[in-house]
Amino acid sequence: MGVKTDQSSKYNKFAYTCLVCSVFVNIYFSYNLFGSKNWSLSWSTSAAAEAEAVASISCSGHGRAYLDGVVVDGKPICECNTCYDGPDCSTYIPDCPADVNSGDPLFLEPFWMQNAVSSALLVAGWHRMSYSFGDYTFTSQELEKSIRKLHSIVGNAVTEGRYIVFGTGSTQLLNAAVHAFSLDNSSTPSKVVVSVPFYPAYEFQTEFFATEDYKFYGDTSLCKNNSEDTMNVIEFVTSPNNPDGQLKKAVLNGPSAKAIHDHAYNWPHFTAIPSPSDEDLMIFTLSKLTGHAGVRFGWALIKDKDIYERMATYTNDNTFGVSRDSQLRALKLIKVVLEGDGRSIFKYASETMRNRWESLSQTVSLSTRFTLQEIAPRFCTFFQNVRGPSPAYAWLKCEREEDELCYQVLEAGGILGRDGTLFGAGSRYVRLSLIKTQDDFDQLLQHLNKLVLQDAGSTKGDI
Amino acid sequence: MGVKTDQSSKYNKFAYTCLVCSVFVNIYFSYNLFGSKNWSLSWSTSAAAEAEAVASISCSGHGRAYLDGVVVDGKPICECNTCYDGPDCSTYIPDCPADVNSGDPLFLEPFWMQNAVSSALLVAGWHRMSYSFGDYTFTSQELEKSIRKLHSIVGNAVTEGRYIVFGTGSTQLLNAAVHAFSLDNSSTPSKVVVSVPFYPAYEFQTEFFATEDYKFYGDTSLCKNNSEDTMNVIEFVTSPNNPDGQLKKAVLNGPSAKAIHDHAYNWPHFTAIPSPSDEDLMIFTLSKLTGHAGVRFGWALIKDKDIYERMATYTNDNTFGVSRDSQLRALKLIKVVLEGDGRSIFKYASETMRNRWESLSQTVSLSTRFTLQEIAPRFCTFFQNVRGPSPAYAWLKCEREEDELCYQVLEAGGILGRDGTLFGAGSRYVRLSLIKTQDDFDQLLQHLNKLVLQDAGSTKGDI
Repeated sequence: MGVKTDQSSKYNKFAYTCLVCSVFVNIYFSYNLFGSKNWSLSWSTSAAAEAEAVASISCSGHGRAYLDGVVVDGKPICECNTCYDGPDCSTYIPDCPADVNSGDPLFLEPFWMQNAVSSALLVAGWHRMSYSFGDYTFTSQELEKSIRKLHSIVGNAVTEGRYIVFGTGSTQLLNAAVHAFSLDNSSTPSKVVVSVPFYPAYEFQTEFFATEDYKFYGDTSLCKNNSEDTMNVIEFVTSPNNPDGQLKKAVLNGPSAKAIHDHAYNWPHFTAIPSPSDEDLMIFTLSKLTGHAGVRFGWALIKDKDIYERMATYTNDNTFGVSRDSQLRALKLIKVVLEGDGRSIFKYASETMRNRWESLSQTVSLSTRFTLQEIAPRFCTFFQNVRGPSPAYAWLKCEREEDELCYQVLEAGGILGRDGTLFGAGSRYVRLSLIKTQDDFDQLLQHLNKLVLQDAGSTKGDI
Repeated sequence: MGVKTDQSSKYNKFAYTCLVCSVFVNIYFSYNLFGSKNWSLSWSTSAAAEAEAVASISCSGHGRAYLDGVVVDGKPICECNTCYDGPDCSTYIPDCPADVNSGDPLFLEPFWMQNAVSSALLVAGWHRMSYSFGDYTFTSQELEKSIRKLHSIVGNAVTEGRYIVFGTGSTQLLNAAVHAFSLDNSSTPSKVVVSVPFYPAYEFQTEFFATEDYKFYGDTSLCKNNSEDTMNVIEFVTSPNNPDGQLKKAVLNGPSAKAIHDHAYNWPHFTAIPSPSDEDLMIFTLSKLTGHAGVRFGWALIKDKDIYERMATYTNDNTFGVSRDSQLRALKLIKVVLEGDGRSIFKYASETMRNRWESLSQTVSLSTRFTLQEIAPRFCTFFQNVRGPSPAYAWLKCEREEDELCYQVLEAGGILGRDGTLFGAGSRYVRLSLIKTQDDFDQLLQHLNKLVLQDAGSTKGDI
């Protein structure tokens, strides 16, 4: 009996221990199930799980899978960075040229991966099916508010006394602005001008859509700066400039001179911000702020009411305004930009761009074969210090007499840039994009190093 | 001792019972936490919770709150249907006119609320930041595949041997098509024509964007059907027609006649599908398929490679293609349309539209003051039966001699339609939208009933 009682007592103790453990396990589970934000999720769970499953597909840090990627064996495949291949992007392709042609702003992708929680967005199936927002317009009031707040924090543009028009990327707004200004001239077509070197889309787009009211004319220097001539001229002013990163002012002045200020790159990522831009018509794009070129969202700040109304009519007749999905996404992303002290993305972006510029400059300086544009250090009102260059593009020049076709020189060396002639400049120039992925930048440096070493070798041989 | 043993035994039994219960609770929790799809959610949870919180805001069935709605007291406000007001849209506004002007396809909103799980979409912060998809184009391959599959299931258009161009709504594609066709004429500008009554945007848009290559000319009947004249003519053919729902064919024929077939309404929702449309250039839009006008997504099926390339250049130069967010959303929604036997949305939509048409016809038939268009029943290859009318719009005519300005007659009766003169037709006609919310339709019927009863009263008085 004594033995039995002992055994029973041991057994009881074991059971109590089990009970205590089990209760703790229950407490743990109930915390996980009810204590976290998960507990109440219902209809959104499967969409969230689907997105996380796709995000968890491993692409070796040299690519990523997307929800709408090409499906093979039931799941989207990895989309690899340039020069990487294989199902998980782990295969490096030997002798692969660096592709630094486009202005694809993927240098910001790691920032958004680091901010996965705050930047994720769940869209309900019935989200904004209508053409109009609650106020019968095509534009989100909350997004407009967040844009005004953003400019006021960054100090890169005056929004007071400005109307805002949204565009399907700044691309749509560039032509909308030309269109709006050109209607001021009833007699002869307006001449659209821009100073060399300039972003090629101004020329392509203006020529493609030209109405009887305007035509692309070319370099600003073709116009004399007198009132008769500036009456009929619309000047694109890109500041900082694409391709060379210089801060620019309108060349043509006078009361009737019309300028479209393209401020795509006017963010602390790419330039010191000397003061808020206070122009009549300023265009910005999400692409070069958050890096989301694919969202196709831009905005224009406009002083004159007539010009504002004409540009709004343009975007309405062209596309019934901007996709409400693009507007929702832009709002979510700009909210993340504004979080905390609103400096996080600017620190990340400007450091990345400055580091890239310094690595590139160091490499180029090892040889006399190539030179880069010079950008003077300036006081930045946003960072409250003097900033060195951190441009979006290198505007590289081939200095050797025989290297007249610089694009071909670089191409032979495994670097695919963008030919200077497309920017209205000479063939000695090539634009190299510094805003693509880290892989793209690394490949650029690697090939450029080889070219520079060849040069050093040949110079030694000369001696 | 016996009592103590008994007590101890009872206590033990209680403890065992607790243990068993606790283990079952453990199993329940562990199932919930690990067995469901919830268990692994991490970075997406807060976005999902945010969307569900907004969706749970009560707007009394007469409105809805959106993620990007105007924020008051920390949460987005309800956006109410016409004639409803108050913080939860529960206040009916007396003497409020029925607004049946726009083609806002909100009749499909309940379908998407019923399909909340399958239609929800979670977008990661780093989703498709690039300009390009993996194949260096601006268009999603998966979306293109799903569109081809959709047409093959519905049987409303031939996609074999057709290129596809995406547009920021079909709106962008309408002008892209005019532009593309007009470049075939080097000498005189192309004349853009369309048969009365027609969708007003053709006129507004063509006039607004007119280049030197084309101009809006007016009614098709202004052109003689001979080869010289059709050389320079681009004809819009809307089938089923907006506003009157009739199936249409091109009026101008011959080898060089160019037609843009606008098939926005060519879905089993609005018409019997007699056979797959096999035209050279056919334009569709998500707006009138899934009801998502706000997504701004349309597509064109194009036979000729040159026309395809010109239209693609147009959308590229205009907006760098269609927002990748719109494309992702369109893909998700079309996937839901294709689920199961691919008939669910078509049954829902066609029943809703037929019921509305029948209610409206019944009301109108009580009086001789108004008449509606007649649409002949036809065999529908999709539903495999003969279908009566279920048009998107009523094309109402005021029959009384004194009711020459029909829009004003209806306006005085509390109905805001769209004036027939905007469609190139007479002022005796008004378009009434039947595709808005149930509230909008109910208000239309209510006011129309009053008008008809007035009429019956006055007729009695006459006798």
